[in-house]
Amino acid sequence: MTRERLFLYDTTLRDGQQTQGVQFSTEEKRAIAEALDTLGVDYIEGGWPGANPTDSAFFEASPKTRATMTAFGMTKRAGMSAENDDVLAAVLNAGTQAVCLVGKTHDFHVRAALGISEQENTENIARSIAHLTSQGREALFDAEHFFDGYRANPDYALEAVKAAHDAGARWVVLCDTNGGTLPADVHRITAEVIAAGIPGDRLGIHTHNDTENAVACTLAAVDAGARQIQGTLNGLGERCGNANLTALIPILLLKEPYASRFEIGVTREALTGLTRTSRMLDEILNRVPFRQAAFVGSSAFAHKAGLHASAILKDPTTYEHIDPADVGNTRIIPMSNQAGQSNLRKRLGDAGITVKKGDPALGLILDRIKTREADGYSYDTAQASFELLARETLGQMPEFFEVKRYRVTVERRKNKYDQMISLSEAVVVVKIDGEKKLSVSESMDDVGSDRGPVNALAKALAKDLGPYQHIMDDMRLVDFKVRITQGGTEAVTRVIIDSEDGQGRRWSTVGVSPNIVDASFEALLDAIRWKILRDTKAAA
Amino acid sequence: MTRERLFLYDTTLRDGQQTQGVQFSTEEKRAIAEALDTLGVDYIEGGWPGANPTDSAFFEASPKTRATMTAFGMTKRAGMSAENDDVLAAVLNAGTQAVCLVGKTHDFHVRAALGISEQENTENIARSIAHLTSQGREALFDAEHFFDGYRANPDYALEAVKAAHDAGARWVVLCDTNGGTLPADVHRITAEVIAAGIPGDRLGIHTHNDTENAVACTLAAVDAGARQIQGTLNGLGERCGNANLTALIPILLLKEPYASRFEIGVTREALTGLTRTSRMLDEILNRVPFRQAAFVGSSAFAHKAGLHASAILKDPTTYEHIDPADVGNTRIIPMSNQAGQSNLRKRLGDAGITVKKGDPALGLILDRIKTREADGYSYDTAQASFELLARETLGQMPEFFEVKRYRVTVERRKNKYDQMISLSEAVVVVKIDGEKKLSVSESMDDVGSDRGPVNALAKALAKDLGPYQHIMDDMRLVDFKVRITQGGTEAVTRVIIDSEDGQGRRWSTVGVSPNIVDASFEALLDAIRWKILRDTKAAA
Repeated sequence: MTRERLFLYDTTLRDGQQTQGVQFSTEEKRAIAEALDTLGVDYIEGGWPGANPTDSAFFEASPKTRATMTAFGMTKRAGMSAENDDVLAAVLNAGTQAVCLVGKTHDFHVRAALGISEQENTENIARSIAHLTSQGREALFDAEHFFDGYRANPDYALEAVKAAHDAGARWVVLCDTNGGTLPADVHRITAEVIAAGIPGDRLGIHTHNDTENAVACTLAAVDAGARQIQGTLNGLGERCGNANLTALIPILLLKEPYASRFEIGVTREALTGLTRTSRMLDEILNRVPFRQAAFVGSSAFAHKAGLHASAILKDPTTYEHIDPADVGNTRIIPMSNQAGQSNLRKRLGDAGITVKKGDPALGLILDRIKTREADGYSYDTAQASFELLARETLGQMPEFFEVKRYRVTVERRKNKYDQMISLSEAVVVVKIDGEKKLSVSESMDDVGSDRGPVNALAKALAKDLGPYQHIMDDMRLVDFKVRITQGGTEAVTRVIIDSEDGQGRRWSTVGVSPNIVDASFEALLDAIRWKILRDTKAAA
Repeated sequence: MTRERLFLYDTTLRDGQQTQGVQFSTEEKRAIAEALDTLGVDYIEGGWPGANPTDSAFFEASPKTRATMTAFGMTKRAGMSAENDDVLAAVLNAGTQAVCLVGKTHDFHVRAALGISEQENTENIARSIAHLTSQGREALFDAEHFFDGYRANPDYALEAVKAAHDAGARWVVLCDTNGGTLPADVHRITAEVIAAGIPGDRLGIHTHNDTENAVACTLAAVDAGARQIQGTLNGLGERCGNANLTALIPILLLKEPYASRFEIGVTREALTGLTRTSRMLDEILNRVPFRQAAFVGSSAFAHKAGLHASAILKDPTTYEHIDPADVGNTRIIPMSNQAGQSNLRKRLGDAGITVKKGDPALGLILDRIKTREADGYSYDTAQASFELLARETLGQMPEFFEVKRYRVTVERRKNKYDQMISLSEAVVVVKIDGEKKLSVSESMDDVGSDRGPVNALAKALAKDLGPYQHIMDDMRLVDFKVRITQGGTEAVTRVIIDSEDGQGRRWSTVGVSPNIVDASFEALLDAIRWKILRDTKAAA
């Protein structure tokens, strides 16, 4: 039996940006678009060209993707032709292959928000879509408030979406904009739209999670015949978020009846990168990953109940609905670390460390990681710190130098021109090959890009590392994330530092302390030690 | 038309305790039980008497509740009578009016986990339930793995639940233990169980969120005829959690067809306490509340998109599926570069600042916000800083004090016991009413909970604020987020601080600087100024 194609439309970069507290930079948008393309979605909605500088900048140099890059905008305004609407023009000027326009389909909104007649609105939809197709673009129509509109006035809601369909829209997307519609209604109404003449393979579904039913409503629409799914990574989006692709993708690939009925652009191979992709997005947003997230959460396969854990050890299928490895996640059994070992060996292998199966050292490493994670450390992303910890446990970590003490001072005061300035001064004392070296460095907030205590410490530390001096020259700190987290019984500060060097290597290290400067310094030391380790190994 | 009664069974204190990282104390269990009773659930599952000291202690002095207090346990083991099973005895000895026993209904588990015959298992179920009823208790049966079991061997799964039903169980609860069943299957199988002879008003549903469908699966079972719902507050529970009562309760009370078809123990009046109850639980768990949570999340009614915000101001129903007040939540229109003047006026109004429509000051404030956002500030969450910025622009912000200069030093060295210790020392010079005040403060990483340079600065600053001294006493820093972001052409540090005070107020402020200490200090100053503003206004 040949499987039907189901299309995935990602709007993380547009609707996802409506999440409270989320503000992507152009660089971040590019990184996310590339991750989405690797995952295998069919459409990437990049933003609204002209609506804000970030979105415009993104489209000016949007990455080359296999997925169809799509620009978002709204149907032309009344009283002007599609050709003369500058807002619509800005969207088309982004030059994307596909364009998605949102328009009203709820009579109440046509009057309340637009203040025009229903017929005018229908014309605006038809003309706008026709304009896109006349320009050779693939046209999509987001039918805003469709489900509310259909309940209030089915005839008009249908007239509006039919106008888009008849004008040549490749996809008419039924949107539950306010997120209040429940799955049963989504199923009934989607079926009625298909019965009214818009084929399912031209219909998309766009839901929100305001009743915690966004995923279920999406499945209900697919059950009724819709063949395009709109959603976001980690369920980002306005208010409670959009339908969560991070949950929908594994459902479609692993769960019946979907797995055997449908084909999607995401492969089983790509699916194993899902957890990593989800965590990467949280890193960009500096959010604590949601532990209980379906499929990708760190607790999603954590078996705390004693009865469950012991059964899991006999046979994982007793308390797991899928194999965590299928989505790149890992099983956690607090009772024993047996489950962790194989996965630890794989991670060590990635770092070029081979440890035989059953080697007691594996248990030691897992225990140290467990203890440190209880203290607030996190090795999900800090792969370099993980490697150093493992090497230390295995006695494979040379002590390149020892930091005896340091002191850093930040002062804010008026300068001689009566302007407030900041000055940071750091003193670091290190011991290398029995020799004590004392270095001092300062950084001011009105010179260069080296600012603040952490950079002052980095500069002082890098000033005289004797034999390793040259190694430091091409290294720089590219990102710095700080978070208050629970360490044991007390709140501590966790710092994650991303570093980069001239050879294009990028690595992450972690530090934890009640004192943010100490935590930063610890992460900084790990970054330097990892770099020295790599370069001296390469040299050796 | 009379409405059918639907019963709510809360298992926050039992299955909710299986959440990774959750460990309730007896005191906390009592507090949660009282909150659940105030809310109006019908059953409170308090835990498993005998399984752990906390649960046993809870039942020894469980609070008097209107809700039926229920003890959880498992069906008697093979090879002994129900009377002689000490595990079962411990459960009964808790003396609760109702007892819920979990038992196997999946033939595979009967063999793999219990290693007994299917017939033995059926007998264990029947005898255990009969024993409860003979003791005059209300008996409930949790049919573990029922949906997986029914798919694998429907005859045996039905035999097992019928045994419980025929033995006098008030409720037979169909459990999707592994959380892998999708709504359509839950609906079909529940309907088939009813067709097989167990009436819906004797059937309960217990789902997990492993596919993000726990709420939808619960609704599907109710649609099929089940009349008892098991769930937890905030969706706590093993792995991805249980069905979230915090979402289900408002759905059942506010959404059709449920609102007019069913009656539940929770009143519309009690519903207005839902958000408070949800936050209270997070308080107990020392968790940051999940902002995007349906109904109760702080973002659940946050309207970021400019188009949405302006429409909301005309008529809230345009972009809200319910009135936030119905669940005790509030509408938020955050500031961001997508916001327009109308939404700015709304935000100002919320802050108690009235500015006439079209007042040029609105343009000035928006410009300052745009400029500052270009410099790396973000006012989405930092609404207290937004208010201060607006008041300054409007000339409505008193200068309570002026910080002339400060200096903070962090030193890491060996103490006289040869242990590495950290010491932070801060000196702050402020001018209040023309009077200069110099304060110094230190914090060490091995005393108290005040650690690091930011806390040292906060302590020094709070040490002598003259007339505002007392205002600082009940204020504390609860969260601290740091992000490297693009400010103009250069990378800068953005710090967002969440503060809290004795009156239960919580507010966020933002600071930006190339220097992390400066950025933190700026956010800290805003936090203090906002607090002084509020308290002096209240006093006035």
